[in-house]
Amino acid sequence: MFEQLGLIGCGLMGSSFALALRQAGLVKRVVGYSKSPSTTEQARQLGIIDVEAPSALLAASGADIVLLAVPVAAIGPTLKAIRHVVTSEMLVMDVGSTKADVVEAAREALRERIGSFVPAHPIAGAESSGPAKARADLYRDRQVVLTPIERTLTIRLQQAEAVWKALGCSVRQMSPDTHDAALAAISHLPHMLAFAAVNALDGQPQGSEFLGLAGPGFRDYSRIAAASPEMWRDILLANRAELRRQADAFRLALNALEDAMERGDAQQLEALIARASRVRSAWRMHTAGAAL
Amino acid sequence: MFEQLGLIGCGLMGSSFALALRQAGLVKRVVGYSKSPSTTEQARQLGIIDVEAPSALLAASGADIVLLAVPVAAIGPTLKAIRHVVTSEMLVMDVGSTKADVVEAAREALRERIGSFVPAHPIAGAESSGPAKARADLYRDRQVVLTPIERTLTIRLQQAEAVWKALGCSVRQMSPDTHDAALAAISHLPHMLAFAAVNALDGQPQGSEFLGLAGPGFRDYSRIAAASPEMWRDILLANRAELRRQADAFRLALNALEDAMERGDAQQLEALIARASRVRSAWRMHTAGAAL
Repeated sequence: MFEQLGLIGCGLMGSSFALALRQAGLVKRVVGYSKSPSTTEQARQLGIIDVEAPSALLAASGADIVLLAVPVAAIGPTLKAIRHVVTSEMLVMDVGSTKADVVEAAREALRERIGSFVPAHPIAGAESSGPAKARADLYRDRQVVLTPIERTLTIRLQQAEAVWKALGCSVRQMSPDTHDAALAAISHLPHMLAFAAVNALDGQPQGSEFLGLAGPGFRDYSRIAAASPEMWRDILLANRAELRRQADAFRLALNALEDAMERGDAQQLEALIARASRVRSAWRMHTAGAAL
Repeated sequence: MFEQLGLIGCGLMGSSFALALRQAGLVKRVVGYSKSPSTTEQARQLGIIDVEAPSALLAASGADIVLLAVPVAAIGPTLKAIRHVVTSEMLVMDVGSTKADVVEAAREALRERIGSFVPAHPIAGAESSGPAKARADLYRDRQVVLTPIERTLTIRLQQAEAVWKALGCSVRQMSPDTHDAALAAISHLPHMLAFAAVNALDGQPQGSEFLGLAGPGFRDYSRIAAASPEMWRDILLANRAELRRQADAFRLALNALEDAMERGDAQQLEALIARASRVRSAWRMHTAGAAL
């Protein structure tokens, strides 16, 4: 049980965490701060935070748990801003979608206080944003990856794990690099492809006419293209080395399909589609209830 | 009201059409045929068809409405097989996802009887298949594109339009070529990209480990990759000219994102993502209730 959550970033992810923590009976008071004062005010009006803090430093001050729910490029500067109030009794986490850059920034920002910081990435989200879209169950049945480093305090790591489990998550640990490689493959590249597909459509003279015909397949395929530009700009930049590798692997796979198509090689084309269809049909989204 | 539906192809699309037609009170009797006898038998056991026909010809014989729900490459041969029982009183439709090739094959197969054939593409579907997955509401609120040619009988075209409208669809007419260009952009290319993305993942040493972490974004993005290999082999081959154009446009859009990422051009990268996000957020799937 925590006395006070310092919530830095009252958008969808941060506000949903506050709601979930409160619903689980794990926190007494939530002090929130967002870069945009109207976001902070909205979060307070919605009862997501109890008190509006005028700065990240004041949101963190006196808290025993701090969550940074800000774009990944803002995590380093935010940690720098709060470092003077970070204590070894405090659990500090982020929810960033990349981890190698976050860990690097955290080392530099927190220095000897880094032991309190547990880098976290809950694999959850929605294309909507803002506190009004927050849901107490956003993290339920989702996976959370923790990427502790050698100086992470064991007690904080255990505490982080317990918090996410209490919110209905299953928790995995991996290195920041492994996390980033995996996420490039299963999330960051798909976002890039969806952005590119929508832009390619929009760039055609008949683009909007074509879009008017699009059905459920397009709807689901392109859903992630509606994501936050600011957030995804940061993610793509932070993880560009892994993304380059994934984009190269994707291009090879696309070329293989196109080659078979151009050659009119029906057998090879069917085999390539059958492989994708088999893999995707066999895949099940991990839920917290399932064995890891 | 029809006396008898001749259903050729008792899979998901065909069986759902039969169920919907029956639910709308538009047909008295359904005679069905599938290439696979077990599919035909299953459709009969499920009450989707009343009678199993031993051939496509016998399914069509005596029907006043015939639906070909077979892979696009099979439409020509099937029309050839039934041409002797096609009359000017009969409405014959397909549900194929490409239209230029279907029209071409129909001209050759039906010759002077082509007036009864109304090429149709209901933009609906699911990754599941087979009669057991059929649903009477599969076509409800979906768009159907009809691509009549100069020799299509007006009365059959009007009848086709009335049938789909009665099933809750909104109906559009366009040329076969326009249809194929639009579908390449909004459906066929997205399928190709999803097949390639899943194959690229599966081809990596850590592919299945990565897949284990995938969340809701991947789930929706890749749903269409689970589609039928036989059906999609035919679609990609039939529409390859348009697909090539769409794949080229996609590659340019992907390169633009990657270039901005590699150059570390945050502003340009954000602008490209913002464009996709704006277009996708503004898009609404057309439903039959909305104005065309």
